[in-house]
Amino acid sequence: MIDAQGYAALDPTTPLAPFSFQRRALGERDVQIEILYCGVCHSDLHTARNEWNNTLYPSVPGHEIVGRVVAVGSAVSGFKVDDIAGVGCLVDSCRNCPSCGEGLEQYCENGFIGTYNGSAFGGSENTLGGYSDTIVVDEKYVLRISHTDNLAAVAPLLCAGITTYSPLRQWKVGPGQKVGVVGLGGLGHMAVKIANAMGAKVVLFTTSPDKKDDALRLGASEVVISKNRAEMASHANSFDFILNTVAAPHDLDAFVNLLKRDATMTLVGAPASPHPSPSVFGLIFKRRRIAGSLIGGIAETQEMLDFCAEHSIVADIEMIRMDEINQAYERMLKSDVKYRFVIDMATLKSA
Amino acid sequence: MIDAQGYAALDPTTPLAPFSFQRRALGERDVQIEILYCGVCHSDLHTARNEWNNTLYPSVPGHEIVGRVVAVGSAVSGFKVDDIAGVGCLVDSCRNCPSCGEGLEQYCENGFIGTYNGSAFGGSENTLGGYSDTIVVDEKYVLRISHTDNLAAVAPLLCAGITTYSPLRQWKVGPGQKVGVVGLGGLGHMAVKIANAMGAKVVLFTTSPDKKDDALRLGASEVVISKNRAEMASHANSFDFILNTVAAPHDLDAFVNLLKRDATMTLVGAPASPHPSPSVFGLIFKRRRIAGSLIGGIAETQEMLDFCAEHSIVADIEMIRMDEINQAYERMLKSDVKYRFVIDMATLKSA
Ligand SMILES: [Zn+2]
Ligand SMILES: [Zn+2]
Ligand SMILES: [Zn+2]
Ligand SMILES: [Zn+2]
Repeated sequence: MIDAQGYAALDPTTPLAPFSFQRRALGERDVQIEILYCGVCHSDLHTARNEWNNTLYPSVPGHEIVGRVVAVGSAVSGFKVDDIAGVGCLVDSCRNCPSCGEGLEQYCENGFIGTYNGSAFGGSENTLGGYSDTIVVDEKYVLRISHTDNLAAVAPLLCAGITTYSPLRQWKVGPGQKVGVVGLGGLGHMAVKIANAMGAKVVLFTTSPDKKDDALRLGASEVVISKNRAEMASHANSFDFILNTVAAPHDLDAFVNLLKRDATMTLVGAPASPHPSPSVFGLIFKRRRIAGSLIGGIAETQEMLDFCAEHSIVADIEMIRMDEINQAYERMLKSDVKYRFVIDMATLKSA
Repeated sequence: MIDAQGYAALDPTTPLAPFSFQRRALGERDVQIEILYCGVCHSDLHTARNEWNNTLYPSVPGHEIVGRVVAVGSAVSGFKVDDIAGVGCLVDSCRNCPSCGEGLEQYCENGFIGTYNGSAFGGSENTLGGYSDTIVVDEKYVLRISHTDNLAAVAPLLCAGITTYSPLRQWKVGPGQKVGVVGLGGLGHMAVKIANAMGAKVVLFTTSPDKKDDALRLGASEVVISKNRAEMASHANSFDFILNTVAAPHDLDAFVNLLKRDATMTLVGAPASPHPSPSVFGLIFKRRRIAGSLIGGIAETQEMLDFCAEHSIVADIEMIRMDEINQAYERMLKSDVKYRFVIDMATLKSA
């Protein structure tokens, strides 16, 4: 077994605190990674506080992991010591079902194993995530990082990046298209950068007029204040695709009505209480679609990382110390972050 | 002008009653049809009673029309006197927009002209429908009927048939697929017949155990009582496509959860009050989709009629006299019809 240090939630209400635990001994196909940076995702907070009613404690969150390989098992072929590597939202899956066969491990029919709180998705054991100094993962579920600097800002690509990249690819976003992104948070700011790099004209929807300059800087061609009915109406029936990153309950129809015939709005945020029920008329009269999308598979996550390296895309981040995580959660709840907190894991040792 | 007799609603609450009016004089591209049969669609009732708050009175409903050509304009090339012809839900559209260009007149960007209550969809005039002895329609919007007998039972194909055929084609239903049909009413019973003829294995969902034998007779391989949780659970993640024909508000998640990854449930019924809001988790975790679909274009309606003739598909109907329409509406509200009322228009003259 390998000794590990991290930060854990022990129950839904106590702040996260230092926690010692053990990782499994290195298997022949395993890679051991010294974690350098870990992004802070809303799912971390939902899980730490048991807001989805499925948390196993102690819970060590964190699934936007970038680090340095420090050991590899005897059968590992894709990684060597000192490589920079990443781990995202999943660390294993059944490897036998049709979805796994198609490289869509995130939809594993038998339940993928999450990087933390693994059993929540059907696995048999709890797993402990990236708020820690080291992790051991089968090389099949480890990503290569080809970015050469600013590695802290690469970490959020492992969840926020792939969560937005996957639906943009799935719905074939590209040049000549008008694409909407709803919400400019951790997910939304990645979606703007990625959709722009894919060649689409990007329109950012936000309720906050003060986000306008930032959205334009990040790659949006236009910013629409979604509470402004006239502005919204001027975009009716004009979007090829809309990626909705907002997890708070809101009126979906306002965006459905902006889709062209046969176009899709994909939801990647899951609200704790339901959205108002979308109008069936809005779907019927233009044969429109509302879809969902969940992170991405390993192959697509690698494709996303390579795409982002090629286009010099990283997240806009605010670096925090490990012992600032509880304050970071409070600020995240107020959307007071541009646009992702990343933990400098060197601060764990000194904490 | 051409004298016409029909049945009209004069306001939302008075029963439909005999009504005399005039059709436009035959234009050079027009076909005049003596109406032999007209199906009774739920939309007729919604419109007669102004339940969608968009009815122009007097309102003559009816958009499942089969009749005999009695006159053609000088430039008409596709029809001649004594041909059997059909008219469906739309009698004109802008002919210039992208949707019209693609033969998807039902999604005309400038609003198609409905066969009745035309302006409700953006046209500038009211139109009067098929509860009448004659109608004048541009030949571009008239359908050829190749069924040679049982013409009364062909009438419902013009709305119920195309409304179900179009999404089944759109989502490429065919052999080897497991397809669900929710609801066994006018739309549902057509969906079962058509999906079965397309080669799919059809599972019919109903809340009424007494519909089981009928569904099997109509072409379903299996009938699931949707209130039976265990039965529903046994079909989880197994459907390639679900066509939901139920207009009453109901739990969509129960059906979304039966879809495979990447599969779609298309809604063709528009409830007067909203469905409970569908779970975003149900969409996200299998990348599933909820879509809408509206009737069909002229070319596809012709394709559907030819397909149904080839496969000997007609509706199961109950023939009524024109003066029984108000009682028929009351029975329709109780789903007391197997599965479509059709008005024998000969009874209008004798009424
Ligand atoms: Zn995440
Ligand atoms: Zn699997
Ligand atoms: Zn109809
Ligand atoms: Zn048009």
